[in-house]
Amino acid sequence: MGTEAEKTAKLLGGARTYPMRLETRSRTEFKDITGLLEKLILESGVANGTCLVFVPHTTAGILINENDDPNLQIDFDNFLKRLAPRAQDYQHNDGNCDAHLKAAVIGASKTLLIENGRLALGRWQGVFFCEFDGPRRRELRVKVIPD
Amino acid sequence: MGTEAEKTAKLLGGARTYPMRLETRSRTEFKDITGLLEKLILESGVANGTCLVFVPHTTAGILINENDDPNLQIDFDNFLKRLAPRAQDYQHNDGNCDAHLKAAVIGASKTLLIENGRLALGRWQGVFFCEFDGPRRRELRVKVIPD
Amino acid sequence: MGTEAEKTAKLLGGARTYPMRLETRSRTEFKDITGLLEKLILESGVANGTCLVFVPHTTAGILINENDDPNLQIDFDNFLKRLAPRAQDYQHNDGNCDAHLKAAVIGASKTLLIENGRLALGRWQGVFFCEFDGPRRRELRVKVIPD
Repeated sequence: MGTEAEKTAKLLGGARTYPMRLETRSRTEFKDITGLLEKLILESGVANGTCLVFVPHTTAGILINENDDPNLQIDFDNFLKRLAPRAQDYQHNDGNCDAHLKAAVIGASKTLLIENGRLALGRWQGVFFCEFDGPRRRELRVKVIPD
Repeated sequence: MGTEAEKTAKLLGGARTYPMRLETRSRTEFKDITGLLEKLILESGVANGTCLVFVPHTTAGILINENDDPNLQIDFDNFLKRLAPRAQDYQHNDGNCDAHLKAAVIGASKTLLIENGRLALGRWQGVFFCEFDGPRRRELRVKVIPD
Repeated sequence: MGTEAEKTAKLLGGARTYPMRLETRSRTEFKDITGLLEKLILESGVANGTCLVFVPHTTAGILINENDDPNLQIDFDNFLKRLAPRAQDYQHNDGNCDAHLKAAVIGASKTLLIENGRLALGRWQGVFFCEFDGPRRRELRVKVIPD
């Protein structure tokens, strides 16, 4: 309504979660979502704060690393394939156990900083949505928390 | 006491950290703590916010992944055993070096989202406390931060 | 200025990000930054809250694990070298691909809890800045968020 307390709550509260939809096009894919996140943060109007990226899937993850040389994505893929080969004798027997293991290594929940209305990333850093069992329609939940 | 500022502080502040005690029963165990976390969030009264789960141990971790097929836990266990075999020539020579390495891969600190009084998990997701050097009495610290 | 809303904002807001500079001395290094973080938290005046540590680099990470036995750092190093050998046929061909892979496993963004003006770490836990492509001058961004 209009009490001082409510005015302040509006000023200070204002953490909000945004859904984000993605489509992946191959079994494994490192999809650069840095631009999508920047756009969302701009629209949120938050100048300084925190940005939580959460993947509500069990065969995908979020990776913060170099997005300059696309060759590196091939190395990430090969690296994870060596750690968790697809064709191995797994107990979870539906053909995508390797994807669960890769997702466990990369992680489904990452925290980023927002400074001056932008992601506070290093010069070479980007944010990747890592698909390990595509192609699929995927969803992300992105929470933007003002300082 | 009763100024507007203090009223607002009560409304908006209210982040709280809860201790959680666990007991594990074997050397390696993937203990599903989703239900325990949901209960704690319900009791906190927080409808929307963030839930930080922190493990104050160096041979355990938190994993967010599928909790539907219990066989997958055997695969996680075998996978990590292949990466970090127990019987290997380690410098840290007290018999649990493999557990430190596994904990480093899985991670001791994870961030979850709270929506409508519940964890905002995907359909197949659960949260596991990962024991790598049990059986032991363990502790978690869970911080619930309202939006 | 001086409205109640502004007074409350000062009381409750107050999340701040601090830059931290580091220098590493060898290609791989596990640099214990627990003391530096504790000092920064003390200076921030925050008694209870959250501490986000973010590495704006793509060949370094943050690890929360035992900092008591320095031998364990040799094991972490050997473990990661086995997972991602430096001399291998990589696509990202500038001689530090292994460092990107190690950084992806360890992670660039970690969340810690602050309780009673200190990091809420377990008895054996410390926080390491992990250098995988040093020696270099590095930077960290540390956000301290009061409850």
